[in-house]
Amino acid sequence: MTKTTPGNFFEDFRLGQTIRHATPRTVTFGDVALYNALFGSRFAVQSSDEFAKSVGYPCSPVDDLLVFHIVFGKTVPDVSLNAVANLGYADCRFLKPVYPGDTLSAQSEVIGLRENSNKKTGIVYVRSRGTNQRNEVVLDYARWVMVRKRDESAAAPGDTVPELPKEVSPKSLGAACPKIDAKAYDTVLAGGARRLSDYKVGEKIDHRVGITVEHAEHMMATRLYQNTARIHFDHYTESKGRFGQRLIYGGHAISLARALSFNGLANAFHIAAINGGRHVNPLFAGCTVFAWSQVLATADVPGRNDVGALRLRTIATKDKPCDGFPEKDNGGEYDAAVILDLDYWALMPR
Amino acid sequence: MTKTTPGNFFEDFRLGQTIRHATPRTVTFGDVALYNALFGSRFAVQSSDEFAKSVGYPCSPVDDLLVFHIVFGKTVPDVSLNAVANLGYADCRFLKPVYPGDTLSAQSEVIGLRENSNKKTGIVYVRSRGTNQRNEVVLDYARWVMVRKRDESAAAPGDTVPELPKEVSPKSLGAACPKIDAKAYDTVLAGGARRLSDYKVGEKIDHRVGITVEHAEHMMATRLYQNTARIHFDHYTESKGRFGQRLIYGGHAISLARALSFNGLANAFHIAAINGGRHVNPLFAGCTVFAWSQVLATADVPGRNDVGALRLRTIATKDKPCDGFPEKDNGGEYDAAVILDLDYWALMPR
Amino acid sequence: MTKTTPGNFFEDFRLGQTIRHATPRTVTFGDVALYNALFGSRFAVQSSDEFAKSVGYPCSPVDDLLVFHIVFGKTVPDVSLNAVANLGYADCRFLKPVYPGDTLSAQSEVIGLRENSNKKTGIVYVRSRGTNQRNEVVLDYARWVMVRKRDESAAAPGDTVPELPKEVSPKSLGAACPKIDAKAYDTVLAGGARRLSDYKVGEKIDHRVGITVEHAEHMMATRLYQNTARIHFDHYTESKGRFGQRLIYGGHAISLARALSFNGLANAFHIAAINGGRHVNPLFAGCTVFAWSQVLATADVPGRNDVGALRLRTIATKDKPCDGFPEKDNGGEYDAAVILDLDYWALMPR
Repeated sequence: MTKTTPGNFFEDFRLGQTIRHATPRTVTFGDVALYNALFGSRFAVQSSDEFAKSVGYPCSPVDDLLVFHIVFGKTVPDVSLNAVANLGYADCRFLKPVYPGDTLSAQSEVIGLRENSNKKTGIVYVRSRGTNQRNEVVLDYARWVMVRKRDESAAAPGDTVPELPKEVSPKSLGAACPKIDAKAYDTVLAGGARRLSDYKVGEKIDHRVGITVEHAEHMMATRLYQNTARIHFDHYTESKGRFGQRLIYGGHAISLARALSFNGLANAFHIAAINGGRHVNPLFAGCTVFAWSQVLATADVPGRNDVGALRLRTIATKDKPCDGFPEKDNGGEYDAAVILDLDYWALMPR
Repeated sequence: MTKTTPGNFFEDFRLGQTIRHATPRTVTFGDVALYNALFGSRFAVQSSDEFAKSVGYPCSPVDDLLVFHIVFGKTVPDVSLNAVANLGYADCRFLKPVYPGDTLSAQSEVIGLRENSNKKTGIVYVRSRGTNQRNEVVLDYARWVMVRKRDESAAAPGDTVPELPKEVSPKSLGAACPKIDAKAYDTVLAGGARRLSDYKVGEKIDHRVGITVEHAEHMMATRLYQNTARIHFDHYTESKGRFGQRLIYGGHAISLARALSFNGLANAFHIAAINGGRHVNPLFAGCTVFAWSQVLATADVPGRNDVGALRLRTIATKDKPCDGFPEKDNGGEYDAAVILDLDYWALMPR
Repeated sequence: MTKTTPGNFFEDFRLGQTIRHATPRTVTFGDVALYNALFGSRFAVQSSDEFAKSVGYPCSPVDDLLVFHIVFGKTVPDVSLNAVANLGYADCRFLKPVYPGDTLSAQSEVIGLRENSNKKTGIVYVRSRGTNQRNEVVLDYARWVMVRKRDESAAAPGDTVPELPKEVSPKSLGAACPKIDAKAYDTVLAGGARRLSDYKVGEKIDHRVGITVEHAEHMMATRLYQNTARIHFDHYTESKGRFGQRLIYGGHAISLARALSFNGLANAFHIAAINGGRHVNPLFAGCTVFAWSQVLATADVPGRNDVGALRLRTIATKDKPCDGFPEKDNGGEYDAAVILDLDYWALMPR
């Protein structure tokens, strides 16, 4: 009887299965400080209790992506310990603000299962939810991941591909953002003069600055989230593996791109939803990450005249500045430097 | 008159001497977050205030080993600044829980002194105690260390080897663990189904996962503890020294092994005592640490039916997975990959 | 219409111009823990709430240099994003203690402008002030920095060099230090027996210990301060640049030198003012920093018999121990290993 957890293999999942994930986590000022040190985030609402209070928050909320990473991290031991690839996200909505002192837990429901034709792997679709200590859902998202089978001859546990929205409806945005006082929102202190109406659909913004990633940084970040995917931590094994080195957690690129996006999107203070995301290429330590964004849409948030929504596509690259806005070529192939293609809704004061 | 502290040499110690160590230290949520980021610990009691409260703690206690490292760190400037080797620990007992906001101080008593036959070094035995702001002892342990003499011709300051127990009696365990509600202890949230009675004496557990250590990580950890042993920090000097590089603080391996041991010992939520420990080989940056454990004994804790004790031997290796349970060979020689051999009592809910 | 900030060039500044800097920042226990982990500071007043209370603080104040770096970091996007070199500091005074929970903001006034003869760059002099949430000034300092012109043919925006004091008058020291109980100040807990009267003018102290700097460390530190100077973070660009590598933020050397200075100056618990500072040579990752100090003066602080002031010159080197007290040679040239020459006032209990 082994005491260690080998993680679930494809044939271990069942459609409709609900998994309560381990290790509830109280988020503290310490986590916030580490997140700041790792990414250099500068959004004023998250940086200053005084600024947050001046616009209507009780204090600075925890960065949305830190919440995402912590919830995601909890799902790893049950969902993706035997993953070959993290394929995508959809319908990711931030539903309640999280403040230091809140305790996050996570559970997932298996919403789809499809075996690959090689019978060696299958795709597992889960809907994961993060809850706080009052059992309020703070985050809800779907993710799908390619998982190895333990035994190639095992029967597939199902054949269902869930319907997932390509976009989170702007009507559902804003639940995690209290009504703010847009007039009290000081754009000088916030570091950018532009409000929602200053952004035009189609507009491209090169965030200009690059940040090089070190092993100590991505490992500290990923451990902070209690994400246990061993490919991020074990040089001994990975040096003989697929990439010849440790792979950086995909969420690290998301957080870097978000922090870089401050330069051009300083008032996009809250990620309300992630429509979808793709880790186009792997990121390794020593690489320098750059990013650019395009405005895909703007939208009203029903019942609110304080904030509106900006649909953004943020592309991150490695070792390639983004003044040329690298993305797909005419043949639909991504520029080899692209590591991330993220589609999300951010809120901005009007 | 020099203002700097050269540290004590062997002939500076006196049997029975009491040393009050410098730099009291308030432990905060920030320290806890850093510890989590450095080691990726996942024990639920220490991770979640809500979980801790549900079983009977007022809030999450500070990780036992973080307490150990902070107290140990204080002793370094006085006890081991001129050490050649840290030889061993014994009779280490955790006596009170430590919570964020508590302030730790340390003092040591010299309990043994024995010059080595080469007259160049001697062994100093100390009993060190960490206390909180209410002057309650939170940690008590013996350690012995080989210290250089300043002057080889100096007379030995004594010749006493103290009697130290090979094992902390299970009767004395549990002082740092409040009475817990074992029924309320949620093993799903805690990440492991096994309780005390599921472990059998002799059982071996390979913790499977490896973590590579970076210079930035071990130096940040060791500075967090205010441990001043220069061999961990100064590449310039150490590149010309014994190992040709910086040596990682031995406690770093202990914390890594403990964090890795979660996979198989998820409910061993509290280290109640350390019976002994040996740093078998040095650990360097770039190495990947693996670990396995063996159950040496189980024991009742007198007067308590909430928890019982598991005596564990945890062995950590560098650059060698532990599926083969590497340890000593028939001749009593350790496998060259072994870096740590630790013998301790952990508490588990019944 | 670009959304990103290119930063100000020399011709963008105006004499008398006031700049409110972005991103107010609540300083927390998390920031303090990170600062400790990065520098290993051991001054008891900042380390222990109990020690701080015993001498008269309400709790441990935030390290003076952490306050300096945070305020400095805010000025970077407006003042020095296009800097060629950070030339100097003067008249830097710490005016109020900062405690965890305080929120810092910054503003600068342009107090001088002088174009260089090559017409490619100019020197910008600013007086920067950090304020807390009660709008009290906590830090006030002048700095001058060589900034590129966007357009070499642009007219110089002025030609004024401000008068700056070579020394902060000891009469103005102590505003950030409450009246302390010097008798209650426990020098054993503080880690050094010497009080103010034990230091003699001219005395030199080799701080002995060295600390090697890693990329992950200096980048985490500099991001913690929300300092956006890209030269510290972007290996891709800097590998083709002036130094062929990332340059470490000058303030990192100041904090390392201060932490090292504990060994010899353990009771110099508060930096009251910085008279001037020069980054003599660049510091790169992988280098080991050493430091020594000389006592330049001692002074009474008017109206106070609890503390006095020690004027110190601290010199930091890279890859050169300081037992030989390296500084300028007879020709006035600095030893090539010197990276920092800092002149400041520290307070010590009498």
